[in-house]
Amino acid sequence: MSEASTRLGQVLVVCAPSGTGKSTLINKLRAEFPTFGFSVSYTTRAPRGNEKDGVEYHFISRETFVAMRSRGEFCEWAEVHENFYGTATKPVTKMLDQGMDVLFDIDVQGAKQLRKTFYKGTFIFLMPPSRKELMQRLTGRGTDSEESIAKRLANADGEMAQAEFFDYWIVNDDLDKAYEELRAVYMAGRCKPELRTDVEDILKEWN
Amino acid sequence: MSEASTRLGQVLVVCAPSGTGKSTLINKLRAEFPTFGFSVSYTTRAPRGNEKDGVEYHFISRETFVAMRSRGEFCEWAEVHENFYGTATKPVTKMLDQGMDVLFDIDVQGAKQLRKTFYKGTFIFLMPPSRKELMQRLTGRGTDSEESIAKRLANADGEMAQAEFFDYWIVNDDLDKAYEELRAVYMAGRCKPELRTDVEDILKEWN
Repeated sequence: MSEASTRLGQVLVVCAPSGTGKSTLINKLRAEFPTFGFSVSYTTRAPRGNEKDGVEYHFISRETFVAMRSRGEFCEWAEVHENFYGTATKPVTKMLDQGMDVLFDIDVQGAKQLRKTFYKGTFIFLMPPSRKELMQRLTGRGTDSEESIAKRLANADGEMAQAEFFDYWIVNDDLDKAYEELRAVYMAGRCKPELRTDVEDILKEWN
Repeated sequence: MSEASTRLGQVLVVCAPSGTGKSTLINKLRAEFPTFGFSVSYTTRAPRGNEKDGVEYHFISRETFVAMRSRGEFCEWAEVHENFYGTATKPVTKMLDQGMDVLFDIDVQGAKQLRKTFYKGTFIFLMPPSRKELMQRLTGRGTDSEESIAKRLANADGEMAQAEFFDYWIVNDDLDKAYEELRAVYMAGRCKPELRTDVEDILKEWN
């Protein structure tokens, strides 16, 4: 009976150069829509503080990670500061089958990996209104060293050069407007025929 | 400076079996967004009442219509009750270049013609929640003869069988929900890279 029980979930991939306001926008979306599932990543780094296995991360050994990776179990993975991080495909697919959406807050390299498994996902690129504005935002936070800012800007340069990869572009020159667009892209994605398995039931009556 | 002056307009094509509530939804969208241009169609039928050439229609002769059609000037045309109706491509393209969106409220055959010229347009199929519900809506209006209702239902059967053609499916089981989805699909379409010529200016700074 319920629509949510039969339609498929959407893979929503959101990328943005650091300082674009991505976290704020994603948190707003998660808060408005209870339809997102959470995927717990795998990592080879040691737990910190109160982190629990299976909650913040699945903490696994380097050998296990490499074995899983060689079996093709990750839809994306990366090495950061000599530790591996990865998302297993199976739990994501399970959530999608149950009608839950899955949001990936990830860098451009990760997005490109995800496209191979979830090629019908919705790939969104958020961008700042200008390079100057981004510099001001990064500097204005007052929390980062000059070196760190320079590094973020260099990363931004690299990511902006790959904007063409994405299905949708959202310019964050106004937070409310950018959120309305993100929300629209998400809602529109839910209307794509390949996810509307619930509609197949309606169509059966006509065929 | 203004975004609207440089981005390209979107072709929005909306199809629905008669009785689905298409007109209500389209009127709401046009009322909310002032970004839609109006395209005046061509017809070979005679003007009625106060109709003025170039306002309701461009009234042209059958010979002129056939000549325009053979020159490929129409992006869609149809014959209804021995009269021709058609939309000229050039004025539509001009509006799109100026950043105006163009909405086509058209049948499935017309939509299929439009895809040939505007293959990157946004093609939406609105549908009733069930065949039974559609029958009740058509009967409940009390304005149509039994014969007319039977004909509308037969048309609906034919159109529903072509649902696969469309990019988006919206089920009108609740008018507010259906409108929110239509609005989202429209807004999301405006975020597609091929229309965001304004963003090209941002990207130039980075390349």
